[in-house]
Amino acid sequence: MGGDNGPHVTLAAALTAHFNYPKLHLILCGQSDLISAYLEQHDCIDDPRLSIHDAPEVVEMHERPLYALRNKPNSSMRAAINLVHSGEAQACVSAGNTGALMTIAFYVLKTLPGIDRPALISRLPSVNNNRVFLLDLGANVNCDSEILYQYALMGSVMAEEVEGLTQPRVALLNVGEEQIKGNDQVKQTAQLLSECDDINYIGFVEGNDIFTDKADVVVTDGFVGNVALKACEGLGKLIIEEVKRLSNKNVLYRILAKIALPLLKSLYKSVNPDQYNGASLIGLNGIVVKSHGNASAEAFSYAIDEAIEEVSRQVPQKIGHRVEGVLSLRQ
Amino acid sequence: MGGDNGPHVTLAAALTAHFNYPKLHLILCGQSDLISAYLEQHDCIDDPRLSIHDAPEVVEMHERPLYALRNKPNSSMRAAINLVHSGEAQACVSAGNTGALMTIAFYVLKTLPGIDRPALISRLPSVNNNRVFLLDLGANVNCDSEILYQYALMGSVMAEEVEGLTQPRVALLNVGEEQIKGNDQVKQTAQLLSECDDINYIGFVEGNDIFTDKADVVVTDGFVGNVALKACEGLGKLIIEEVKRLSNKNVLYRILAKIALPLLKSLYKSVNPDQYNGASLIGLNGIVVKSHGNASAEAFSYAIDEAIEEVSRQVPQKIGHRVEGVLSLRQ
Repeated sequence: MGGDNGPHVTLAAALTAHFNYPKLHLILCGQSDLISAYLEQHDCIDDPRLSIHDAPEVVEMHERPLYALRNKPNSSMRAAINLVHSGEAQACVSAGNTGALMTIAFYVLKTLPGIDRPALISRLPSVNNNRVFLLDLGANVNCDSEILYQYALMGSVMAEEVEGLTQPRVALLNVGEEQIKGNDQVKQTAQLLSECDDINYIGFVEGNDIFTDKADVVVTDGFVGNVALKACEGLGKLIIEEVKRLSNKNVLYRILAKIALPLLKSLYKSVNPDQYNGASLIGLNGIVVKSHGNASAEAFSYAIDEAIEEVSRQVPQKIGHRVEGVLSLRQ
Repeated sequence: MGGDNGPHVTLAAALTAHFNYPKLHLILCGQSDLISAYLEQHDCIDDPRLSIHDAPEVVEMHERPLYALRNKPNSSMRAAINLVHSGEAQACVSAGNTGALMTIAFYVLKTLPGIDRPALISRLPSVNNNRVFLLDLGANVNCDSEILYQYALMGSVMAEEVEGLTQPRVALLNVGEEQIKGNDQVKQTAQLLSECDDINYIGFVEGNDIFTDKADVVVTDGFVGNVALKACEGLGKLIIEEVKRLSNKNVLYRILAKIALPLLKSLYKSVNPDQYNGASLIGLNGIVVKSHGNASAEAFSYAIDEAIEEVSRQVPQKIGHRVEGVLSLRQ
């Protein structure tokens, strides 16, 4: 039911995924009359791989997370997360209110042993068609060094499992590369990471190096990660606006803009937190993928792909296993 | 002497400014034989508005700030800041090592009464050809709410004096716009700002809104500001690389890239911290403008323009006056 575009986008994406993955079983949580009408319209109301889970309430996009948690027990979002908790579903994908999704998922699913807080993680483009995982994108704005250390571990597992890398290069985001740079939080985290044999820690990187393929995983707290990502999103939008503005200048610019805009827009989307594969909430007992509120059916279907990938790679189990191993070594 | 390109860039820029401002007197600090050879070559060695201040040492670009402060008493950078301190110069412009410049300027010039820490501030582009001041860009990575409050005051004065705005809109950078969002540091700062009649405080903005002309001044700590700005710089570079990569695909793309690149590069430069007007170190007893280490002669001359503007608008005095007024009201 979530997202700026409502169930017609999420249901269209669901049917795409349904078609692409012959073994996929989808449980569509939301207002059942609306969903069944849609499925009937598309001749798949009787498909055994599509079930409807009635959830009459809707978490609004700007509702306060705690309000949604306390007052919307029958929302589609809550229902989907409950199904992951009970084991009836292996993953939840939502385009709804990010804060509410994080709060409800954290409350219902709880974190894995050894993990204090979940993190929001996403992949961004870097030079030469590479990709980089950036976390935390805003799940947790008050991170001490222990939490950042856990985030580095989780990011490393994601890069190994979802991106298929061996010994992914893990870096800490800082204001300079020298050891003396930064605040106490990053300095202490650097100390913890350099003592950990389970992480290929390569040191500090600066903001610009998110995109230079220096690292496969860039770790920072939710405040910095959120601001950095949204600043990039804002810059991308500004560039598009600027190209549009210039296209009104003369015919040459108009033609140029026509050709350049699709390229710029695709780059813009790729830095848009969860426009493509979605952003994953990791560190929980279960898989939760967040698609952009404004996602198209195509983008939302990528978020479903991401969830399927995480299920098949058993990401929460792998994270749990890794954290357990590191914790037992530290003790 | 500073910068990646050495004195030939800074001296060329100096001559441009010399030509543009008939009342300007420039004191060129650095290795005198090198400078005098350059001036002789350009037939202006006897110009009464150009003097040479011999400073044989050079602060290297990657030298540690404290090392430069302690061990390079005769560097061009130290000499220039000393001249501001003694009143012989009204402003210092440098393309040298940013950390060293901040450390030496802070040590020699000291902060204005009521200001605990200097801030690095710069103007970025926003939609419809507007501009926004962003601070702090990395002068101070550990900012409590009192320091952020002082930064908001200083940013407001900069927007009034340098940009000529009345009641500039001052915002705090945060992970959401709602009052409940963010860490303690921004919540406490928001409280201080909403109680201050001397600042037109408009509330929180998110990273993307740096570029949407919602605010004239965006305040954040040096860690977040530095990372956000450099992330944007990195994204700009990535887009340029991507366009170049595509241009190798076929002739159409090659022609397209040829036309699009200058536009993208100019946008890229405008988010490059100090590529254009330079970034100013404010809150000190004196004017210090930092140009990009990699600045061209044109870019460095813009930094000189910025310094001249700040001198004519008496920015440090205005900041001092404003802070004094606010402090006396609070007591």
